[in-house]
Amino acid sequence: MPTPWSPIHFERTDGRAPIVLICEHASKLLPADFGDIGLTEEARASHAAWDIGALDVARGLAEALDAPLAHAGVSRLLYDCNRPPTAPDCIPGQSERFEVPGNRDLSRADRAARARLIHDPFHAGVAALIAAHQDRVAGPLTIITVHTFTPVFLGEPRAVQIGFLHDENAALSVAAHEAEAKAGIYASALNEPYAAADGVTYSLARHAEAEGRHSTMIEVRNDLVDTAEAARDMARHLADTLRHSMAKVLPTMESAT
Amino acid sequence: MPTPWSPIHFERTDGRAPIVLICEHASKLLPADFGDIGLTEEARASHAAWDIGALDVARGLAEALDAPLAHAGVSRLLYDCNRPPTAPDCIPGQSERFEVPGNRDLSRADRAARARLIHDPFHAGVAALIAAHQDRVAGPLTIITVHTFTPVFLGEPRAVQIGFLHDENAALSVAAHEAEAKAGIYASALNEPYAAADGVTYSLARHAEAEGRHSTMIEVRNDLVDTAEAARDMARHLADTLRHSMAKVLPTMESAT
Repeated sequence: MPTPWSPIHFERTDGRAPIVLICEHASKLLPADFGDIGLTEEARASHAAWDIGALDVARGLAEALDAPLAHAGVSRLLYDCNRPPTAPDCIPGQSERFEVPGNRDLSRADRAARARLIHDPFHAGVAALIAAHQDRVAGPLTIITVHTFTPVFLGEPRAVQIGFLHDENAALSVAAHEAEAKAGIYASALNEPYAAADGVTYSLARHAEAEGRHSTMIEVRNDLVDTAEAARDMARHLADTLRHSMAKVLPTMESAT
Repeated sequence: MPTPWSPIHFERTDGRAPIVLICEHASKLLPADFGDIGLTEEARASHAAWDIGALDVARGLAEALDAPLAHAGVSRLLYDCNRPPTAPDCIPGQSERFEVPGNRDLSRADRAARARLIHDPFHAGVAALIAAHQDRVAGPLTIITVHTFTPVFLGEPRAVQIGFLHDENAALSVAAHEAEAKAGIYASALNEPYAAADGVTYSLARHAEAEGRHSTMIEVRNDLVDTAEAARDMARHLADTLRHSMAKVLPTMESAT
């Protein structure tokens, strides 16, 4: 019996804050529809498949901020919803640590089918959530995407603990990084461990920049959020950071929430 | 903790038959996001909320025919995915047996939000599934929607057991009804217990007629499919009926499957 799957899940669509949260790498689900992609169980549970802890952080932020959340329903090994169908790595043949045999000799029709079945409904759903939310809250919306990264990359430990990444409009990311630096609790960085040049700001570009909205992509080192409790604590911390930095960037934020 | 929900679920997207199955009234889920719509538990489990047995029949058909299936993820009490946002009954204030208090004084923004969050992603997802499937199978696709109806309506027992409903193109519905009549197992009818004039062929019009595809809307009396086993048996029966009638309407069907 094949398992039903969904390209997108919604939560707290009745949230009242002028914010929409997006978590593109929330799931490690590999529905049987897509066949065996040829990875070990270890690889299928690793960062290659999803952002460990990201959904828990995103949910904690949704609760703390009272904001709606959209998250993807299948693993990025099938299609990376933070990449356009034109990106060479939208269906990865290789991650940091693993080859993905089942992605190497996909037919053109199978690649197109993944974009149509996963990417298209996910981004149509995000756009629908943003449009619905824009109708119901006062003032401009802010778009926040939530990701995690590994403590070690290509053998090198990463010192950064929280990164704020931006596309064209840097304001919110700069404010959030400055707030973190001032608080001094976590090692924060701007545009680390990735940046727009790595092609990781597709969702920001599509759903924020194109509409003149403020945005930031939050990257949290996954050893800080690898239990539900740790993720909830991190979400509370990040909610404070975001409230503070949104109030700086958007002077009406405090009255709007 | 709010439950995540999805406007659409997919199954068997790797199916090989030139058929796409749609089940708009598959779910009775009422996510907390939409508040309390003010119904008793009995009403929330009744035909007012969903088509009892329809998803089981649709799944059985997907298996028997080897065809992909898209089904809606929330109750039609929130938004009826077989209605356009312009239909007065797309968010029902009244069903056959129940008033729906929570739908009576919705703001314009709340009505628009339901269409955006439920209708738009559902039909975008169905279109994506059809486009992906069209790339991968030979020949024209046939669209089949799966519904159930109550044995008694406004106090009158219904004698019909299986109905085949059509929009503009009647061919497949006529062939299926003739096959049922010839088999003589069930009381079959054309355009009963509903018909296009009742506004029930929106999905057919949108995903089949507009693209010149054959289609039919199957309606099964729900007392015939109220257990998983009965639904599976009905699905096997209907799969035979559909194979037979598709072969008549589409001469290449047998070689294509």
